[in-house]
Amino acid sequence: MLTVDQLHQLLHFRYATKAFDPSKQVSTEEQNALLESLQLSPSSFGMQLWKFFVVEDRSVREQLKSESWGQGQVTDASMYVVLAAETNIDEARIDKWLTQLAKVQGAPIEKLAPYKEMLSGFVNNLTPEQQLEWTKKQVYIALGQLMTSAALLEIDTCPLEGINPVAYDEILGLKEKGYTTAVACAIGYRSADDHHANTPKARFPLSEVIETI
Amino acid sequence: MLTVDQLHQLLHFRYATKAFDPSKQVSTEEQNALLESLQLSPSSFGMQLWKFFVVEDRSVREQLKSESWGQGQVTDASMYVVLAAETNIDEARIDKWLTQLAKVQGAPIEKLAPYKEMLSGFVNNLTPEQQLEWTKKQVYIALGQLMTSAALLEIDTCPLEGINPVAYDEILGLKEKGYTTAVACAIGYRSADDHHANTPKARFPLSEVIETI
Repeated sequence: MLTVDQLHQLLHFRYATKAFDPSKQVSTEEQNALLESLQLSPSSFGMQLWKFFVVEDRSVREQLKSESWGQGQVTDASMYVVLAAETNIDEARIDKWLTQLAKVQGAPIEKLAPYKEMLSGFVNNLTPEQQLEWTKKQVYIALGQLMTSAALLEIDTCPLEGINPVAYDEILGLKEKGYTTAVACAIGYRSADDHHANTPKARFPLSEVIETI
Repeated sequence: MLTVDQLHQLLHFRYATKAFDPSKQVSTEEQNALLESLQLSPSSFGMQLWKFFVVEDRSVREQLKSESWGQGQVTDASMYVVLAAETNIDEARIDKWLTQLAKVQGAPIEKLAPYKEMLSGFVNNLTPEQQLEWTKKQVYIALGQLMTSAALLEIDTCPLEGINPVAYDEILGLKEKGYTTAVACAIGYRSADDHHANTPKARFPLSEVIETI
């Protein structure tokens, strides 16, 4: 779909955008495409233990900004997405996944009994802390796919880890919904003033980050 | 670079490939492009607390397979990459990053003193367990970018979480190198026999995974 050179260009196009142009909006069509990139992201067992909160309300954005070291991306970017991990991974949640799987495959759910046993065994073997660590890592795959997908549409992003997840959960009412904030992502178009766009990437050389065995 | 429709196709092209065609190899040029997608992946503060081990040695691949529930992807895929998180995040590691940053920016490292203080404060505020959780999550961003990038080149992938990371670390000698296994990824071309290629995706509807606030 792309040549190696085009992929190279794409990877260099993306950078953590510090200043967004608040006047430039991501089109509805492109917004939907980016939400689909989240929906179709790979996850452990395909269970999709996540939810993505698109914050459009300006006053909520302002509240989140004050829980994000005042970073302007929270309010200036066209889209602001909070990527959240699901917190209650119980029998019912496993059944919800198996019901979806059986429906799509057009097979009776009973056929999935051995798979269910395996899944339950895996999940129940984790402490609540390990479960959360596991689900949050899945959310980061979605973050990666989202940022690369946006770059493909020549849309800029900035991942935000420097946020107060406890405050985010409160502001967005996530706890009652069964989720907790993992990370956030601002999406839009770089401001002409963002000098970071022209700063060369400070990556370690390939010889340091790759080792062949 | 892509249209919304092309992105949609790309997202549907990708699936967790269960059976690879062992006779089909990823070209050297494409391998390098995929390694660059790892190298250029975003990470917290840009610190790149990771290393990617490309396992070419067939006997090592066999050993890893037996620590991966015998999954055939480990040996059948053209490339097998173990994505590892760095374990010793000390003052020296922070300095290594700042040295790289100063070099690329052509600025004296002394100018980065306030940034160094902030970084040290952040890192030292984490317990060793929290540090590792943090670095592993970064590795998952790279995993996401890698899989999306491969799909762009019409190359298949399968992420492998069902592996024994302790055994992986021993087989690859990662502990002595200052790394620990986070996740692995098989990369190559789907086998014509892989019926999973034609199974519809069992994603929950957008209305369930996206919420607008």
